[in-house]
Amino acid sequence: MSSGQRKRPLAIVTVSGGLDSAVCLAEAVTECEVAVLHANYGQRTEERELRAFHALADHYGIENRLVVELSSLGAIGGTSLLDDSQPVEKGLPEEGAAIPSTYVPFRNAHLLCVAVSWAEVIGAERIYMGAVEEDGSGYPDCRAEFYTAFEAAARAGTRAGDRLRIVTPLIDLKKADIVQRGLQLKAPLELTWSCYTESEAACGECESCCLRLRGFAEAGSTDPIPYL
Amino acid sequence: MSSGQRKRPLAIVTVSGGLDSAVCLAEAVTECEVAVLHANYGQRTEERELRAFHALADHYGIENRLVVELSSLGAIGGTSLLDDSQPVEKGLPEEGAAIPSTYVPFRNAHLLCVAVSWAEVIGAERIYMGAVEEDGSGYPDCRAEFYTAFEAAARAGTRAGDRLRIVTPLIDLKKADIVQRGLQLKAPLELTWSCYTESEAACGECESCCLRLRGFAEAGSTDPIPYL
Repeated sequence: MSSGQRKRPLAIVTVSGGLDSAVCLAEAVTECEVAVLHANYGQRTEERELRAFHALADHYGIENRLVVELSSLGAIGGTSLLDDSQPVEKGLPEEGAAIPSTYVPFRNAHLLCVAVSWAEVIGAERIYMGAVEEDGSGYPDCRAEFYTAFEAAARAGTRAGDRLRIVTPLIDLKKADIVQRGLQLKAPLELTWSCYTESEAACGECESCCLRLRGFAEAGSTDPIPYL
Repeated sequence: MSSGQRKRPLAIVTVSGGLDSAVCLAEAVTECEVAVLHANYGQRTEERELRAFHALADHYGIENRLVVELSSLGAIGGTSLLDDSQPVEKGLPEEGAAIPSTYVPFRNAHLLCVAVSWAEVIGAERIYMGAVEEDGSGYPDCRAEFYTAFEAAARAGTRAGDRLRIVTPLIDLKKADIVQRGLQLKAPLELTWSCYTESEAACGECESCCLRLRGFAEAGSTDPIPYL
């Protein structure tokens, strides 16, 4: 069978609406038919992220969208991202620093579970997630070894079995490389949202804004979204 | 430190309210301080199961309870357990039969994720689940290898890391052995509920009722709950 005849595999891409997920989506559409998944879990900027999710899906003409509520994460708590009484760290993470207060315990596993269940129902063979280990916030569920282990669990615990792959194309990239890859793939970075605290103009001070701004600066580019 | 001084580890036990989860809970309380977790996900007998969950927790005097909604499973579908228009299989599963329609894709992984997140917040070191591979319904997320793989993922993806253990004390037991173990541990089996379709008197016909009734019969005992 020539590659022209080969059917593109169906992939589910988890899309928060942030920079990383937009570049991950841009990678996925080069190889796969795509369905997109977004989770609300009571985070401070939930509505703004959902708007970015739909804008990105519209941009790529993706019809198959699933938005779920991970309400259990709110019930469990333990993170400043869901608790207005706890401050969100400002500035860049320090080398070897403790896990930030914005860590939502095991959140990415919840999201992967939803993706795996949905993959079982729609027959998707790949799950893409834009997790970043190297230049990220040090969250334990952003480590490459976690995704390898979770893929094994998903294969062992589903009908799909060994057909299922979990793909993390950004896991070893620096933020500047992610920006460059996004520009190269013509990902609509102006539609993304990364700020942990604001919804109209980004604060420019939270850890997520600082990582993003440094990425654009190091890539020699300008972030197209508005800042306060 | 003598064993008399050793603090009992804190465990989270997932309790559906069925026979297996009650025996699993009875096992856990022999070794651990226990917190209990229950999930609603839109299953037909949700209210009846929740009543059984609280009755079991009351019986063991467990204060620390978490009830969560796994609403994403309802949004995903693909199972007769959440869809009144699909029939639920009757009778016992046949050897080598297809996965039953009542399989909720990857459900136990969702439940484990909630347990792991909660364990991170309350400092629990063990998660007990009463999954049964040998004499169960053939659901892929009830295989022993799935739990081994998921434990590895949970260790890789959390702060708790290698302290965390996932314990499945019933995984290799036959239903009759589970009944016997429950009687031996004086588990309050009269408080449990297993039927997939009814809430006042069990139907006695669905696969879950048939497995349960055969277990009691083979254990030479009588099921204490009412049947239609």
